[in-house]
Amino acid sequence: MTLLLAMTGWDYGPWITRFRAAAPDLGIVTPDDRFDSGSIRYVAAWNAPEGQFAMLPNLEVIFSLGAGVDHLLKRDDLPDIPVVRVVNDDLTMRMTEWVVLQVLMHHRQQHAYDAFQRERKWDPLWQPAASAVRVGIMGLGVLGRDAAEKLSLLGFDVAGWSRSPKQIAGIACYSGEDGLKAFLARTDILLVLLPSTPDTAGIINADLLKGLAQDGVMPGRFPALINAGRGALQVEGDILAALDKGILKGASLDVFETEPLPADSPLWSHPLVAITPHIAADSDPQAIADGVAAEIARHERGEALLHTVDRGKGY
Amino acid sequence: MTLLLAMTGWDYGPWITRFRAAAPDLGIVTPDDRFDSGSIRYVAAWNAPEGQFAMLPNLEVIFSLGAGVDHLLKRDDLPDIPVVRVVNDDLTMRMTEWVVLQVLMHHRQQHAYDAFQRERKWDPLWQPAASAVRVGIMGLGVLGRDAAEKLSLLGFDVAGWSRSPKQIAGIACYSGEDGLKAFLARTDILLVLLPSTPDTAGIINADLLKGLAQDGVMPGRFPALINAGRGALQVEGDILAALDKGILKGASLDVFETEPLPADSPLWSHPLVAITPHIAADSDPQAIADGVAAEIARHERGEALLHTVDRGKGY
Repeated sequence: MTLLLAMTGWDYGPWITRFRAAAPDLGIVTPDDRFDSGSIRYVAAWNAPEGQFAMLPNLEVIFSLGAGVDHLLKRDDLPDIPVVRVVNDDLTMRMTEWVVLQVLMHHRQQHAYDAFQRERKWDPLWQPAASAVRVGIMGLGVLGRDAAEKLSLLGFDVAGWSRSPKQIAGIACYSGEDGLKAFLARTDILLVLLPSTPDTAGIINADLLKGLAQDGVMPGRFPALINAGRGALQVEGDILAALDKGILKGASLDVFETEPLPADSPLWSHPLVAITPHIAADSDPQAIADGVAAEIARHERGEALLHTVDRGKGY
Repeated sequence: MTLLLAMTGWDYGPWITRFRAAAPDLGIVTPDDRFDSGSIRYVAAWNAPEGQFAMLPNLEVIFSLGAGVDHLLKRDDLPDIPVVRVVNDDLTMRMTEWVVLQVLMHHRQQHAYDAFQRERKWDPLWQPAASAVRVGIMGLGVLGRDAAEKLSLLGFDVAGWSRSPKQIAGIACYSGEDGLKAFLARTDILLVLLPSTPDTAGIINADLLKGLAQDGVMPGRFPALINAGRGALQVEGDILAALDKGILKGASLDVFETEPLPADSPLWSHPLVAITPHIAADSDPQAIADGVAAEIARHERGEALLHTVDRGKGY
């Protein structure tokens, strides 16, 4: 029972340590080791070296070590075996922390107060309650549902949109192309938690942004955009144009078309844009290794894998 | 059945409108009107003019129009009748919004990322999960309990402290002088939601701050202080000294010894201090008027008032 770690851009050392702790009985090798290709039944991958998978005739399961699986599904050498994504409570809760923080910063006008402080200006602003603010969540997977639940508990008027119809208690759910227009028209704060797939590439574009509500309770602050999904979802030129036209009044972005965000991107200095460096849900690596080990143990016992990716949907 | 509105610093007009909407059968007068003093059975007050209460021989209940009642209890002319404070869901939820925002800003290192953005610097910081961060709430009234519940749901390790012993499911509760030391020693983010009373005046001082945990999971960020109670709770010179000595690593203050915070206060420009202008829980004025009207209706039906102040405790 041997697992190959196949990554580019990450250090192997800490991951070997984590997998040894998570699964002491598992053999763990890296592309730098000498090993019998036929012995490898599992791969845990993050941007695996090109051609890596083709060399492994007995591979049974590929595990993603990051939250998204686009780095796997876009490959030419992906064999027809189960691909498993990272789903764990730690990652979900971290994403919800970041999402709630960003929604509250827009709602409670935090950037305005930061600016007032720099000017030593005591200026209480009119403030509506959360119940008067409509948050719209695109993507109702594990992350979107948890965000919806926590934001509802804080009092926000939350709705969700997903490709296929979903039902969540207490949340108005829209779906498909038909539902998108009505969903956007009732959204003051748009929170995007979609996976990156061919269908969602560039979905945050001029067309989508111009559909957002222009009748929010704080016309100077809303609509606002929050993207914590993937950079491939957004057309940055369209976001900048919408901000400059006043169609969009603010944006919090954790992901970008190119990462790290290039130093010459106009996003860095735009007064209505808040940037974090893809840190919304940096899951605890040990929790990821533990999750992979648990899935391998299930597979070895002949049980079904819990978080297999649907390749048709791309997530 | 007549209510006197008695305020300084606020406009009467909007309050008259709100009370007319809340209680159409109630007579509503202000100190500027001609009225029979003997007819006044209720007062709704915010910093009422000096000597106002002494002129009202048949006064039965005094209602505070703001969240605190220190403006009433400190008066020499306060008659020995029930004083009722503002308790409503709107105010509680707004306070929790602000509290959750400030806790998350400290936890997720938002001010550091704001600074990185100004420098166009892409620098993901190591980030522990909320479960590794110990929030300590001083004051377990309606506001403290709601904050404790919401912060727990977001994953924080929450404890509370109150003068008299309390029990809250899932929250470690400390009390009294004896419990304070142990409470502070396990607190990374100290959140103060105490009322302003003679007992709590200046409670946030050098002694208290030096008792906070120095072994937090993010030594460069914790301990941090968040005060959304009253300015009278804090000794600002001690907070500044603790920040400069490194005993305290950050502070979010919504209330101040003198409000508006004077332009020459060193708090404005301290790099570790975040200031908002007493906006944490600016309740919806209509909700306050509705609450007073509901209490008057109860009293008229011979039922007990719901939110009478205990003058011994001061809240």
